Amino acid sequence: MTILIKNANEVITLKDHVQGPRTKEQMRDIAIVENGSVLIEDNRIVAVGAFEQLVVDFPDFIKNAELVDAAGKVVMPGLVDCHTHLVHGGTREQEFNMRLNGSTYMEIMNAGGGIHATTKRTRETSFEQLYKKTMQHLDVFLKHGVTTVEAKSGYGLDWETEKKQLEVAKKLQETHSVDVVSTFMGAHAVPRDYKGHEDDFVELVIQEMLPKVAELELAEFNDVFCEKGVFTPEQSRRILEAGKARGLTPKIHADEIEPYKGAELAAEVGAISAEHLLVASDEGIQQMAEAGTIAVLLPGTAFFLRAPFARGRLMIDEGVPVAISTDFNPGSSPTMSLPFIMNLACMHMGMTLEEVLTATTINAAYAINRGAQIGSLEADKQADVILLDVANYKQLQYFYGMNHTNTVIKNGRIVVQNGILLEQEH
Amino acid sequence: MTILIKNANEVITLKDHVQGPRTKEQMRDIAIVENGSVLIEDNRIVAVGAFEQLVVDFPDFIKNAELVDAAGKVVMPGLVDCHTHLVHGGTREQEFNMRLNGSTYMEIMNAGGGIHATTKRTRETSFEQLYKKTMQHLDVFLKHGVTTVEAKSGYGLDWETEKKQLEVAKKLQETHSVDVVSTFMGAHAVPRDYKGHEDDFVELVIQEMLPKVAELELAEFNDVFCEKGVFTPEQSRRILEAGKARGLTPKIHADEIEPYKGAELAAEVGAISAEHLLVASDEGIQQMAEAGTIAVLLPGTAFFLRAPFARGRLMIDEGVPVAISTDFNPGSSPTMSLPFIMNLACMHMGMTLEEVLTATTINAAYAINRGAQIGSLEADKQADVILLDVANYKQLQYFYGMNHTNTVIKNGRIVVQNGILLEQEH
Ligand SMILES: [Zn+2]
Ligand SMILES: [Zn+2]
Repeated sequence: MTILIKNANEVITLKDHVQGPRTKEQMRDIAIVENGSVLIEDNRIVAVGAFEQLVVDFPDFIKNAELVDAAGKVVMPGLVDCHTHLVHGGTREQEFNMRLNGSTYMEIMNAGGGIHATTKRTRETSFEQLYKKTMQHLDVFLKHGVTTVEAKSGYGLDWETEKKQLEVAKKLQETHSVDVVSTFMGAHAVPRDYKGHEDDFVELVIQEMLPKVAELELAEFNDVFCEKGVFTPEQSRRILEAGKARGLTPKIHADEIEPYKGAELAAEVGAISAEHLLVASDEGIQQMAEAGTIAVLLPGTAFFLRAPFARGRLMIDEGVPVAISTDFNPGSSPTMSLPFIMNLACMHMGMTLEEVLTATTINAAYAINRGAQIGSLEADKQADVILLDVANYKQLQYFYGMNHTNTVIKNGRIVVQNGILLEQEH
Repeated sequence: MTILIKNANEVITLKDHVQGPRTKEQMRDIAIVENGSVLIEDNRIVAVGAFEQLVVDFPDFIKNAELVDAAGKVVMPGLVDCHTHLVHGGTREQEFNMRLNGSTYMEIMNAGGGIHATTKRTRETSFEQLYKKTMQHLDVFLKHGVTTVEAKSGYGLDWETEKKQLEVAKKLQETHSVDVVSTFMGAHAVPRDYKGHEDDFVELVIQEMLPKVAELELAEFNDVFCEKGVFTPEQSRRILEAGKARGLTPKIHADEIEPYKGAELAAEVGAISAEHLLVASDEGIQQMAEAGTIAVLLPGTAFFLRAPFARGRLMIDEGVPVAISTDFNPGSSPTMSLPFIMNLACMHMGMTLEEVLTATTINAAYAINRGAQIGSLEADKQADVILLDVANYKQLQYFYGMNHTNTVIKNGRIVVQNGILLEQEH
């Protein structure tokens, strides 16, 4: 099937002048084509440019193309949400209300809240229920313009449940329009019955879980929560190196609550990305810049927990490639709106409107090793394109707190139109 | 036409146990009916309660009712946005980008930005264009669950344009589903050509504009921007008293940037509400509580300008009835999402989930003198009802940054279904 998007006020192409994630002023170069057109054939972008030029260059394609009118709209690549805990049981709004009413973290834990509450619910929820729940979440992501989602396991903390989470993600990758990219995160927390002998759990992850994840091809990435009271830098390093040996690319939840040299570790082990980084040290940021480690920043989590925001501005200025994501999870960031997270990055991390667009498209794509396929509108890339109900890209952040997604084209098929999800093959 | 909403997980009725705006713990009593039904006939709520009871009490109504299934959803009164600058020309995203990039207020003003930019655009925009633009904004409000909007003039600062703004609002009140309640705000800023002789402009408002507004019945309320460098408390008092003499109820933009005893003035002149109040004094808050002046708080403006938030928690604790609104305007709050503003009130003003619901329904209704008609689901009130895609009301703020509005029933007609705006008679 051939689609021609035409008359767009602006086509934000993010055309790749560099191979690899963008840094510094590259992050501001979003390569706009005004009054632009995008020509799509099947799952491939054929060309982006002026309508008149496309007519000359591709007359046969154009003849048979279904026309999508983007008059008055902005066109850009489908958003890439590169850090989520997508597959999980239950919700935790009760705990949120307690927190608003002044309860402490310990009071919430004692009332049965916190990560262990989600672990319990995820273990109890059947594959089918989990699949159905997650499918509905992906529908919501899609309506917010997100065409690719990374999904971490880590609410099982036992093999059976970790496997269940990863298999739900794998099945959704096959059945749902949204692309789902899997990360194994067995080391998301220390299970309660391993308190005091955490190293035994580390061994369980390394000796039993990782080999099976690799064998069953259930994930591409291996993530660990390196944080005081969770996994030490030394334990984290062992887990990440063991993953590398099995072909899993390292990611790391680093320096979220207390500085713990997580950024430094990410650079050292050659992680593709380090996440959160609210309290990353100047030195760690420097080392990430040198190693080319992508910073995946999650301003929604800071907003929801009323914590200080990561130093996004500084990281960009120091040469770290920055990506932005929802961190969708039931405890610290229950949102599926990457557009709103983009607002926060502008308002609270000192990022410009252009940097935020780069951070949620091409840099986010590189953070999950998809930079060659998605994240920009260029010939031969995957046909993931969104149309937004704004007159120019600046209005995306200006009209704040709103979802402006009008149309989503995923793999060359129109899956959202006028904000309405078309029938999914669930 | 008769509609029966049934099977709702929760019906948030906000049933009125008191006549008048809610204060203190009344703001937490949102009067939930679990597994509830709402029976509507034409533009009137007939009854709210258990389905079994309604069948017994209203067998004839039920027989002919169109059924609306609210299974898995929350039902509540249509949201009331009680403070907006709805009718205005142009947008100012360029200025927003300058601000994000570090420009100062003065640099923005010198580049042609600020309120005078909107005044210029509003003067230049024809009635028809302004009508069409504002109509589209109302469509967006409706999709966010807002069924009543207050609209202030004040981007004319000359009679011709003030009149145009108010007439656009009046025509939309007649043609659009959303109810539009008008406020005259000629004293929104001092026009450039009155600098140095501001009192002459005050006289113009009092002697020429106010009488015409009253005579043409173009507004119910009279608002003034009482702020250092804009209108003094003494000038504000004169304008508000002159409005009262013409039958216009006072409102006041008070204590937004510098403490200026605006809250005190609001209490003294018997204003129905005081707005913003970011820096209202303890004494002013006390006097508002005693006078029963409603505090209309606008956390979106603080968010967008990165200013400190109003002391909502304290005001409620001191007995001030609090309402929450978007402050929709092109300079300091370009959002049409009252649901997101509710998130902010929870996250940044210390308000509970229940208080925020009261503040955007019944208290907001009282702030525009509509407490007897809208803002709660009770027999004989106007049939403005919304259905939300959440399992319980706590999830409205928990799943943050998202619009959960599924269905909007306005004046007894279904105008939004599955998030889709049904045909409007534009
Ligand atoms: Zn995470
Ligand atoms: Zn205002």
